[in-house]
Amino acid sequence: MTINLIKIRFTIAALAGALCCMALHAKKPSLTYVDADALTVINRAQEQAPGWQRLDVDRYPDLTPKVKSYYSYPTGLAVAFRTNSPRITARWKTTGKGHGVNTTAIAQSGLALYIKSDGKWTFAGVGKPTYNAKKHSSTIIQDMADGQKDCILYLPIYDGLDSLEIGVDSACTISAMPNPFPRKKIVVIGSSITHGSAVSHPGMAYPARLERMLDMEFANLGASGQCKLEEFYARIAADSKADAFVFDTFSNPSAEQIEQRLEPFVRIVREAHPETPLIFLQTLRRETTNFNRGTADFENAKREAAARGMKKILAEYDNVYFIDPGMPIGDDHDATCDGVHPSDLGMDRILQVIAPQIREIIR
Amino acid sequence: MTINLIKIRFTIAALAGALCCMALHAKKPSLTYVDADALTVINRAQEQAPGWQRLDVDRYPDLTPKVKSYYSYPTGLAVAFRTNSPRITARWKTTGKGHGVNTTAIAQSGLALYIKSDGKWTFAGVGKPTYNAKKHSSTIIQDMADGQKDCILYLPIYDGLDSLEIGVDSACTISAMPNPFPRKKIVVIGSSITHGSAVSHPGMAYPARLERMLDMEFANLGASGQCKLEEFYARIAADSKADAFVFDTFSNPSAEQIEQRLEPFVRIVREAHPETPLIFLQTLRRETTNFNRGTADFENAKREAAARGMKKILAEYDNVYFIDPGMPIGDDHDATCDGVHPSDLGMDRILQVIAPQIREIIR
Repeated sequence: MTINLIKIRFTIAALAGALCCMALHAKKPSLTYVDADALTVINRAQEQAPGWQRLDVDRYPDLTPKVKSYYSYPTGLAVAFRTNSPRITARWKTTGKGHGVNTTAIAQSGLALYIKSDGKWTFAGVGKPTYNAKKHSSTIIQDMADGQKDCILYLPIYDGLDSLEIGVDSACTISAMPNPFPRKKIVVIGSSITHGSAVSHPGMAYPARLERMLDMEFANLGASGQCKLEEFYARIAADSKADAFVFDTFSNPSAEQIEQRLEPFVRIVREAHPETPLIFLQTLRRETTNFNRGTADFENAKREAAARGMKKILAEYDNVYFIDPGMPIGDDHDATCDGVHPSDLGMDRILQVIAPQIREIIR
Repeated sequence: MTINLIKIRFTIAALAGALCCMALHAKKPSLTYVDADALTVINRAQEQAPGWQRLDVDRYPDLTPKVKSYYSYPTGLAVAFRTNSPRITARWKTTGKGHGVNTTAIAQSGLALYIKSDGKWTFAGVGKPTYNAKKHSSTIIQDMADGQKDCILYLPIYDGLDSLEIGVDSACTISAMPNPFPRKKIVVIGSSITHGSAVSHPGMAYPARLERMLDMEFANLGASGQCKLEEFYARIAADSKADAFVFDTFSNPSAEQIEQRLEPFVRIVREAHPETPLIFLQTLRRETTNFNRGTADFENAKREAAARGMKKILAEYDNVYFIDPGMPIGDDHDATCDGVHPSDLGMDRILQVIAPQIREIIR
């Protein structure tokens, strides 16, 4: 928070000479760009991380190369700022690392802006990346009414971010704002489903949607295909300050891995956080199991192992929760992009069921 | 139909010598590929079109270059076949034309397989394209139970298709099947929303979903950003045989274009189809208008022009329908990929409202 306050003072000072732009803006006036890391960065599981990484990946030398790569993406991070500019633009550079066939380029390498309106964070526009490129520039919104706006800008889900600048009309101001979700902080550790593999833009992964629905800060530590209850995830949770943890830890491991790893995993987290609610989500019934018998057997065994394991954990530990079904995507079989990853439709069906339960647990 | 029957005979003849694979399949036996155009191709607005075009674009010399390009994509087409293979694979070549930042590669250049199960077309798997490539190969499903399966495979939405081969275990059979939706045929002419710009896979554009929901064949003539009530669309409808037409013709034009073009458009279609139901969808309230006043003015004027124009048309013509709201995407502002294009979530909300109305009109 100290750092953010310094940033706020710096930004306000830097822009103090600028006139307020109310009623002054002509058609397409010039733009002034500010480096987004002078604004408020929210949704990090731990306070510090270099550049636009969501986690300081060098703090955990036993991360696998894939997890290290994914955790260096800014997945789930957002920049919070206040501006009176009628136009908001962005220039950004990505590493070009991510290329999911189940992800739109906007979700992968783009930006999503929300503005507070009548007390609600409301979709305002997206920053469209250039297809299959590393350098991007986009007008996110323009021709807005006068007045101060509170903004959060969600960052790319599946790409590294080298730099990000936000542009406003030169006669207007932009400044860091205090964390808009100061009440509670939740850290989510999970699979591609948490990561947001098949959502349509960076504001639609379920942790980002929970953030706006529950008015609590959510850190996204989803790692596509990689979350198999490894010990390093437990240590990351142990090292993170949170008012609750959500674990999507049954989507990637096998039944055997769940049997071997669940109890030690919970023990490490519980030792560091004796009272904090630990909320485990049962994984979804994959649509790839509709006709594939081998997949169906593997997946059923996994979900049964999770249910058995959690039964023991619930008997042993207080303030641990198992939401089952944890990812109910409906029964029309049309809520995933590829049989595994919920689309925005699947995510919405999941949230209708789990958001009220998570709210109830954390309140 | 004659052509399809010839194809069926040809395919059955070609494979007559092959043993049925029941209980014979070992692990990963060899594959036999058949050219998909020897199977049954459904969802074309007009009977013939060269290659994998959805419409014979040379029949309409006044198509704009963009519409000509889009109509040469196989958008909305599907291949219907019957197989007893436990595994279905595909090899296909695309032209690499489409690169939407709001579209997954699976929707853009991939395939989506549905199999009939308990009388319902059920999602089975996707054919994953190779990212940013023209040559693709994918195992769509494997390890299925024995027995004949009725299959429909939806084709790429935003890419040209040069060739498509479907692979089955060599000891098994694959054959064309009769059109699975013989009851009614509906032709949809429209914008990117019809085209399926932001859906997650080729089976999720709303015409494809209506096809499975209503058990009627739906042809998709959506052309991203290009459907401004031009006369050639009316002539395409006039030349197409259909039990009803659905028009998403208010998403792209300006208010002025709607005022000038709607009546002549309806006149041309009605002259060719004196009794056929013509169903017009009011366009959606774009989420880009949440804060952008210029866009809001333009969009409101457009929707008002559509409502005024349709009032006159309804007074003048019988069996014309105006569904308003025609694209109700909800009020949480989170049902589009980019402020304009409904994600699978937006499409689902639209269908909950319009599918029963369309069913009622057509029955």
